[in-house]
Amino acid sequence: MAERSAPLSRTEAPRVGVVGATGLVGRELVTLLAERRFPRRALRLFASPRAGRRRVRCGEAMLEVEPLAPPEADGLRNLDLVFLATPAGVSRRLAPACLGRGAAVVDLSSAFRADDNVPLVVPEVNGARLQHLGMKALDRGSGGSPGSGRAHAGSSWSGRGLVASPNCCVAIMATVLGPLHRAAGLDRVEATTYQAASGGGRAMLESLEREAERWTAHSPGARSDAPPGGPRADLGELLFNVRSHESAEDETGLNGEERKIVGELRRILDAPRLRVTATCVRVPVRRAHAIAVTLTTRRPMGLAGVRELLGRSPGVAVVDRDAGGRSPEPAWVDGRDLVEVGRIRRDPTGPGGRSLHLFLAGDQLRKGSALNAIQIAERLLADSAPRPGRDDAPGLHLYE
Amino acid sequence: MAERSAPLSRTEAPRVGVVGATGLVGRELVTLLAERRFPRRALRLFASPRAGRRRVRCGEAMLEVEPLAPPEADGLRNLDLVFLATPAGVSRRLAPACLGRGAAVVDLSSAFRADDNVPLVVPEVNGARLQHLGMKALDRGSGGSPGSGRAHAGSSWSGRGLVASPNCCVAIMATVLGPLHRAAGLDRVEATTYQAASGGGRAMLESLEREAERWTAHSPGARSDAPPGGPRADLGELLFNVRSHESAEDETGLNGEERKIVGELRRILDAPRLRVTATCVRVPVRRAHAIAVTLTTRRPMGLAGVRELLGRSPGVAVVDRDAGGRSPEPAWVDGRDLVEVGRIRRDPTGPGGRSLHLFLAGDQLRKGSALNAIQIAERLLADSAPRPGRDDAPGLHLYE
Repeated sequence: MAERSAPLSRTEAPRVGVVGATGLVGRELVTLLAERRFPRRALRLFASPRAGRRRVRCGEAMLEVEPLAPPEADGLRNLDLVFLATPAGVSRRLAPACLGRGAAVVDLSSAFRADDNVPLVVPEVNGARLQHLGMKALDRGSGGSPGSGRAHAGSSWSGRGLVASPNCCVAIMATVLGPLHRAAGLDRVEATTYQAASGGGRAMLESLEREAERWTAHSPGARSDAPPGGPRADLGELLFNVRSHESAEDETGLNGEERKIVGELRRILDAPRLRVTATCVRVPVRRAHAIAVTLTTRRPMGLAGVRELLGRSPGVAVVDRDAGGRSPEPAWVDGRDLVEVGRIRRDPTGPGGRSLHLFLAGDQLRKGSALNAIQIAERLLADSAPRPGRDDAPGLHLYE
Repeated sequence: MAERSAPLSRTEAPRVGVVGATGLVGRELVTLLAERRFPRRALRLFASPRAGRRRVRCGEAMLEVEPLAPPEADGLRNLDLVFLATPAGVSRRLAPACLGRGAAVVDLSSAFRADDNVPLVVPEVNGARLQHLGMKALDRGSGGSPGSGRAHAGSSWSGRGLVASPNCCVAIMATVLGPLHRAAGLDRVEATTYQAASGGGRAMLESLEREAERWTAHSPGARSDAPPGGPRADLGELLFNVRSHESAEDETGLNGEERKIVGELRRILDAPRLRVTATCVRVPVRRAHAIAVTLTTRRPMGLAGVRELLGRSPGVAVVDRDAGGRSPEPAWVDGRDLVEVGRIRRDPTGPGGRSLHLFLAGDQLRKGSALNAIQIAERLLADSAPRPGRDDAPGLHLYE
């Protein structure tokens, strides 16, 4: 978990916006803002006017959702921190607009994840990339470059308070692989995923649930002859099935999710030549991913050392026959913050002492997306909060 | 599929027994015997007296199941061919007894799979191991060693008409990997599985189905707070979950299923030094497995060559964006004979031109168990059927 500095006073706390607040990830963001008592002076929720839902639960309260129609940026004034839980195309439009209006932005889409000027962050692993970023970005005119509070064209807003939160599988994997990389240097990573329906958004999750209802509605005798449960045709059958991730395959045969794993994992681990390969598969699980990982380290590492290291790594819980008496499972991490790792064993076919199998499970909506984004924001806040002896630092006036 | 010789006449056809006929695999065996018009003079079904079900469908007919109580072998007289769809402990008792009474035995359990004297066969891959076996084994006294029609202690019955059918994942994998091994020599195989509930027997499949019903019975509002669906506690939660295979882990951290994959794949491919590693996972699917395979060949092989080779391999269907417009899925092979293979692509982290990813799907009850066993028996029959110019071969009288 992110470390917390002393809480900000109410007047220092940021005015927070969540865009895409009615989606699965947006709702989880709002839930977590309440659950973690995220410091805030105001909280405003936004969604497309086409979103059916107009109220979202935040702790005990039900909050109204403001419709955000193009030009959406007009609605996003007077905010200090904006979470974009929006499709990549929307994030590309809104991020510069928010930055230009002086807000820091945590984007959960893939829009900026490959941009070398935008930090891609899992706080437990490369949270140091956030240091002073909040201050630099949000330092509206008090010593920064002239005009730094305005939007810039192209990617020149980069490094100015925009942070990208990674793909769900990457966030979950990096939490576990980061400590191993630091300790022994990763040489190769192979990920084979068991991905939940929530990663496909509310439509996919609800389609899976409808399939379960339809299957049950068939009398047992008729089931085996019954046609597949009748999900939305474009989503395909997922109940009692597994299928390749729906993202498009490129000419090398990789689907989009697999490409994200390769590129984003290298960035977060700051290991551009790390050999990464992945097979991404949807399974009929609601909101937690499991991932089978085979890896090779540069330096040998004993299994006991791996277990001990992961056992004291932030955000990680070692779960195996000795601890918990089971292996990591989606059902056990559903709605929880920690990433479980277990089945820590040698890959006997790999180079001696350097090849491992691990099995991970992590909640797709928590560490896989909303939790990681909020942890990023918590770090930004901690880094820009007043500290003893630093009263004159530019970060002081960030959230006035 | 196994090749068929000219059909046997009714009087030549064997008297067939299926032991364990009320289990999932046993019932599939009986279904397939009807569906494939397996030559038979008689068909008798057996199950433990504790089995609830006493009639099993065979084509249009419902057949009575005979209770088989210890000493079970007494009930197994006057049979020429016995399928043992029984737990390994039962198979160990019954196989020698059946052989001693003159029957050929196809055992679907793990009892004899590691016995070097018992052929472990996937007919498409190493069906040649069956040649003349039927004749030798069933040659009751007409030229064989004296007393060959009687049971022997220990494993001395080996090579005498006993054939083992492999683990479900192995049968499915070997069907696809066999041709690749023959063409380019396999050096390393990594299997990460998505295994169906049927592999855990009727109890696991029914537990999964009960979970779906209970989940649906909860009102949508109550679901998220509802306790897990309430499966049999010893089976654990499987609906909307994935979990490590339930077989026991040894000191190296491998579970029993993973050990089977390593040992049995080597035997079937006749590659004792093949490097094999596996991660075996149950998913909430009813009766078809999927398996992500990463492999390295000794000699380079182009992707087009792999696709072409697999496209003409018996028992295999290539399914990808170019053929079928989808990837292999359990839902598409449910109740079908072919093993689907797709997502044929390079593993870019492996040695150049020699490392591949494949994704397979195959029905656990068909190619994974019952179908493979019947294909073994079809080969035995074909090899022992009368052929022109071989009228005096001892095999002639096998099934008199």
